[in-house]
Amino acid sequence: MANENPCPSVENAELAASLKGKTGASSKLTTSQNEASQSKSHPLGPLTADEILQSAALIRSCWPDGNECHFKVLTLLEPPKAQLLPYLTAERAGQAPRDIDRRAFVVYSLRGTHNVHEAVVNLTTGQVERNAKLGPFMHPNADSEELLAVEKAVLDHPDVRAELDKLQLPPGTVVVSDPWIYGSDGVNEGKFFDDRRLMHCFLYMRDPNNPSEPDSCHYSFPLPVLPVVDPVTLELIRIDILPTGLDEKVQPLAPWKPVPPNEYIPEAQKEMRTDMKPLRVAQPEGASFTVEDYSELGRLIRWQKWELKVGFNQREGMVLYDVHYDDKPLFYRLSLSDMCIPYGDPRHPFHRKAAFDLGDAGAGVMANNLQLGCDCLGSIYYIGGVLADTHGRPVDMPNVICVHEQDAGILWKHTNYRTNRAVVVRNRELVLQTIITVSNYEYILAWIFNTAGDITYEARATGILSTQPVDLDLTTTPHPFGTVVHPGVLGGYHQHFFSLRVDPMVAGPGNAIVYDEAVALPRDPTLNPHGVGYTTRRTEIETSGGYDLDPGTNRTFKIINPSVRNSVNGAAVGYKLMVPPMQPILADADSFHNKRAEFADHSIYVTRYAEGELYAGGRYTNQSRGGTGVRSWANRKDSLAAGDPVVWVQFGLNHIPRVEDFPVMPVETLRVMLRPVNFFDRNPAIDVPSSRQEVNCSVALDGSGTGLEDGVRGVSLGGDGDGREPTMAAGASRDSPCACP
Amino acid sequence: MANENPCPSVENAELAASLKGKTGASSKLTTSQNEASQSKSHPLGPLTADEILQSAALIRSCWPDGNECHFKVLTLLEPPKAQLLPYLTAERAGQAPRDIDRRAFVVYSLRGTHNVHEAVVNLTTGQVERNAKLGPFMHPNADSEELLAVEKAVLDHPDVRAELDKLQLPPGTVVVSDPWIYGSDGVNEGKFFDDRRLMHCFLYMRDPNNPSEPDSCHYSFPLPVLPVVDPVTLELIRIDILPTGLDEKVQPLAPWKPVPPNEYIPEAQKEMRTDMKPLRVAQPEGASFTVEDYSELGRLIRWQKWELKVGFNQREGMVLYDVHYDDKPLFYRLSLSDMCIPYGDPRHPFHRKAAFDLGDAGAGVMANNLQLGCDCLGSIYYIGGVLADTHGRPVDMPNVICVHEQDAGILWKHTNYRTNRAVVVRNRELVLQTIITVSNYEYILAWIFNTAGDITYEARATGILSTQPVDLDLTTTPHPFGTVVHPGVLGGYHQHFFSLRVDPMVAGPGNAIVYDEAVALPRDPTLNPHGVGYTTRRTEIETSGGYDLDPGTNRTFKIINPSVRNSVNGAAVGYKLMVPPMQPILADADSFHNKRAEFADHSIYVTRYAEGELYAGGRYTNQSRGGTGVRSWANRKDSLAAGDPVVWVQFGLNHIPRVEDFPVMPVETLRVMLRPVNFFDRNPAIDVPSSRQEVNCSVALDGSGTGLEDGVRGVSLGGDGDGREPTMAAGASRDSPCACP
Repeated sequence: MANENPCPSVENAELAASLKGKTGASSKLTTSQNEASQSKSHPLGPLTADEILQSAALIRSCWPDGNECHFKVLTLLEPPKAQLLPYLTAERAGQAPRDIDRRAFVVYSLRGTHNVHEAVVNLTTGQVERNAKLGPFMHPNADSEELLAVEKAVLDHPDVRAELDKLQLPPGTVVVSDPWIYGSDGVNEGKFFDDRRLMHCFLYMRDPNNPSEPDSCHYSFPLPVLPVVDPVTLELIRIDILPTGLDEKVQPLAPWKPVPPNEYIPEAQKEMRTDMKPLRVAQPEGASFTVEDYSELGRLIRWQKWELKVGFNQREGMVLYDVHYDDKPLFYRLSLSDMCIPYGDPRHPFHRKAAFDLGDAGAGVMANNLQLGCDCLGSIYYIGGVLADTHGRPVDMPNVICVHEQDAGILWKHTNYRTNRAVVVRNRELVLQTIITVSNYEYILAWIFNTAGDITYEARATGILSTQPVDLDLTTTPHPFGTVVHPGVLGGYHQHFFSLRVDPMVAGPGNAIVYDEAVALPRDPTLNPHGVGYTTRRTEIETSGGYDLDPGTNRTFKIINPSVRNSVNGAAVGYKLMVPPMQPILADADSFHNKRAEFADHSIYVTRYAEGELYAGGRYTNQSRGGTGVRSWANRKDSLAAGDPVVWVQFGLNHIPRVEDFPVMPVETLRVMLRPVNFFDRNPAIDVPSSRQEVNCSVALDGSGTGLEDGVRGVSLGGDGDGREPTMAAGASRDSPCACP
Repeated sequence: MANENPCPSVENAELAASLKGKTGASSKLTTSQNEASQSKSHPLGPLTADEILQSAALIRSCWPDGNECHFKVLTLLEPPKAQLLPYLTAERAGQAPRDIDRRAFVVYSLRGTHNVHEAVVNLTTGQVERNAKLGPFMHPNADSEELLAVEKAVLDHPDVRAELDKLQLPPGTVVVSDPWIYGSDGVNEGKFFDDRRLMHCFLYMRDPNNPSEPDSCHYSFPLPVLPVVDPVTLELIRIDILPTGLDEKVQPLAPWKPVPPNEYIPEAQKEMRTDMKPLRVAQPEGASFTVEDYSELGRLIRWQKWELKVGFNQREGMVLYDVHYDDKPLFYRLSLSDMCIPYGDPRHPFHRKAAFDLGDAGAGVMANNLQLGCDCLGSIYYIGGVLADTHGRPVDMPNVICVHEQDAGILWKHTNYRTNRAVVVRNRELVLQTIITVSNYEYILAWIFNTAGDITYEARATGILSTQPVDLDLTTTPHPFGTVVHPGVLGGYHQHFFSLRVDPMVAGPGNAIVYDEAVALPRDPTLNPHGVGYTTRRTEIETSGGYDLDPGTNRTFKIINPSVRNSVNGAAVGYKLMVPPMQPILADADSFHNKRAEFADHSIYVTRYAEGELYAGGRYTNQSRGGTGVRSWANRKDSLAAGDPVVWVQFGLNHIPRVEDFPVMPVETLRVMLRPVNFFDRNPAIDVPSSRQEVNCSVALDGSGTGLEDGVRGVSLGGDGDGREPTMAAGASRDSPCACP
């Protein structure tokens, strides 16, 4: 590697601003393996293994020997929209798009130091175009290497062992550490620690009666000792002792008292159900979608008039680009932008629990390797990813996205009661699913497309509560900050906020955001004599800002294209947002939870498109202090007159744990829907073939082997069948021969 | 039939009160076929064909020869709870329950008159226990016999033909009439017509270029002529002409102008999709549920620890009784209580559009005959019903409920990032589905049970908009009261309200209703120094009343049993209600829409249990005037201290039509969930076997015949595979051999 020409680092650069136009000094890498010509690829293609290696080498070349880089982020830097949109337009038109330089975005530290840099590598030219030291209150994400190191350091530390000794745990006990993002400790502690990046480690133990079981649910055995560690130096900063009563008082550590285990693994259950019979999805002709490569790792999916590009990166995981339906542009980019999970226990040190799972860690790097027949049913196509490790080496991430179809019940039906003819069309969906594990917790995240032009984003929250100890004698006492889910185990109250970033191009560029409301008309002897009238009113959002749902007015946010009119009724074509209500963040406006979770106060934010504004909580959420996310951008009150809005859809839940959520939680499911409104000229699923038995091959149960009796019962009727009234509606169909060959 | 002993009718009885204790004179039927001993059956068994015949005969026996009865309702009268609950308890305990007399509830008129009676027939004793003439403002439901008669009378009437002639419709045009419930016309018109029951008929035509197609979508061709008819005498009362502009002014009828058709039947489509490949549900070992008869027509279903009785009646359609999980009582009775669909067009005569689909017609009588392979996938068990026709004869209603299992994605998952072991359990659901056709419109209604103790009620709205004509030159002009969905066709704004009646017995009798809210703690230097704290507060509902959701406080209504405590944390066991927000009715408080839709103003009503209070809009909704539904009952401010609450859950949508909702509407789906909260001692689905490929037999797509490439890609990695970091989480599982035999 060529090290003779180190890139000077730009000290204390103001990194909160966007990256554009601040190119630092650069260094050209000349080794043959990194020829610029090799880097040509689709501008939206995820970084390839070669590009990861090339990027890391270029960064290393900036530094003298003896400096090792610890890579935190090494990912595709997507081109500016001004370059990319013409590229995509040309590509779609079958014209040769103008090449765009490939770039990598890199965050790294000098190994063993808190000296963290942000860099931009031009892979096409082989130059480091930017290389700047992070400013204050900007910290990189955690990574698995340091999590494992921190866990080991903590458990090996004599001071920690001394504290644990006070608990007099049974011989052979295995203690387990869940290192956690430090959140924010408030102004004073921030000063004490000089804005140093820290971790705190929640300690647990395995079931002492079964300590060799590595999958024992240690969350059933939380311990009151919380070491605070510097994840870079592995220095033990302090040991906090957890309050385990009803208030903030901390008791001296006392001997641990036995409690039963609460395991989720099947072999630990006393009894498993035996009466669940197999249910399989069979697709004898395969799937209805096709997959092509648009780059080495990027995938273009076509299904039922839909066309979309699927990317995958370290932070957001699955990202969708360039979404079209029937060759009509809809969305430029769709992604989960961030999550925030602030906890409601105000007591030190629980007040520091507020995780930004994407910004603090990364949905890509935490993605599960999905298993055939376990995570989906039917005919499955798996998409893999390649990410970078802390040494700048590529890591294969197989099966991080699964693509499959599912049946979702009936999409539309009508029975003509005069002819008894029923026409019924089922709702077929295309699902792109990814599952992430954030230490104790899981999120099942999916984009779902259907044949009626709808897009649904579904988030299922599952996994295990992040538990804390509570005094055994308080087990049946209501706790102000959580639910006792097991003897000695408190599931603390917390909120989940998701922020979905919707970058639209509904019917092309020049979109606007409006909301429509339904309002009662006043009584009027001529216009509303009976008091039953209502109408709708439209409000255009003219400047960036935060907006709230209002079920009382049926307030419905819509992305419209004022310059494209519906061919039937002349309305501006649009897509509406169907968003479940959420309780805004409960932490007060002056708290760091609130300041940092810039998206947790409004269901809708609208900003004017700006390069680099991808993450609702800002680029660097770890121990952030606020001021760099969507609330701040929205507060610019940018005019949206130029037609380049970005919509940020927030949704979430206040998780007041139930006993039923332990030891592993049945999913809490949230769905956001994007639905066409006066976009098409009629029901877009009118051309979907009817649901027919000769295709679906369902089985009428007749009791053989199931305890069931004849499905068509010989009901004893008083009459002989003639002269009966026609019923108002019945589903006999004149064109649906319902017999499966 | 024995007619010598007619029952005296009780003139103008006050029927709004409950039925108890007001037994009229009675008549004993002595024919052998109606022996009391033959009527013994389970008290919750739907009326059998024999019982229908017996009831009708007993009613007829009350009247002299020459009076013919027109039966409107002839259905099971369920026993009072005070009798039934001990019966069910004894039955469950394996003891011989004390017999309860079988009774029928009957509404009928003397044929050809508006003389309508309500009667109670004791089938066990063979006596008519009650027989009373309906009071003012009480009208029976419509029935299919009169709908067909009205349609014919209207189209044959010379005055109607004379009006239609003014439209100069093309030769051969087929005019179609949709008779509608008259709603309410306001006080004055009510006076004019002396509270007579009426119908008004929306007229349409078939595509004049294809008039022989009986399934032509006539809703694409609405006509501006609205005959008003007496459905009993078939007298034409008046012909209203519809306003077709933007205001209330009515134009003289002018020649019809050609517009294109808009058909939903597949053979009328220019092009159908050809790229949707089959997706089948295979259950090689059959279904996991069993079905037994608890009466001739009642069905007892057992599935995955659930046990419930399924009944079916004329008004509510599917009804669930005696719902238990793992032998624990949960719900005494679950039913859709009513619906109301008020329209928002204030102009005469549209102001009369407000349908109560259950009360005005009946979800049972409108139930579709569900078709194998069309309305559900997999292994299906069909339940049929028997209802009475207007002559008191039984009518077989085959396949009105389908019972099947479905996969609903992942129910819970956890990946231990230390061992990479994933445990994943899929969400299997039991679905009880019924579909009703209300003239133009369809509702797909389902109770869904899962393995985690959750019950979901799902309503899908589909079918065809009830359209009205709009001037062709206004096609692209925004309309204040609707959306133009086709040239000349307006889809008027309307609201849908559903009222779910939940009669609980969570962990037994003695339930209470509470709501919990999450509230921020005030800043406090000791208790909340960082401003992040929040807690919950509980409010007990002590008297009957209407209550609202409040997403801002995460207000969550719960049915609890204060006398049964969770074995882990001592909390009162409970079930929470997860209810989607709805915009309350927009018609003002003095309007008849509002007065009649007694359930459309609050998401939650709580009443004290009272016999006969089953229907949220009152027993007689047709042309009702209000004062007999849940709002009125709630306003009694009954104390709930005795622990016998009934919860009425309202949900709905404001349907602002889209062009996409025509000619048939993709489903709008609404879901209400009943979910255990501190009811079980841990995740109740912890014992569900893991999802495994050897059971599920999914298929990894490898491109054969699908255009897909290898699912496991040979990603080019820079390294040779050694020395890579473990990722933070991956889903490889040590106990899930994922190979299908």
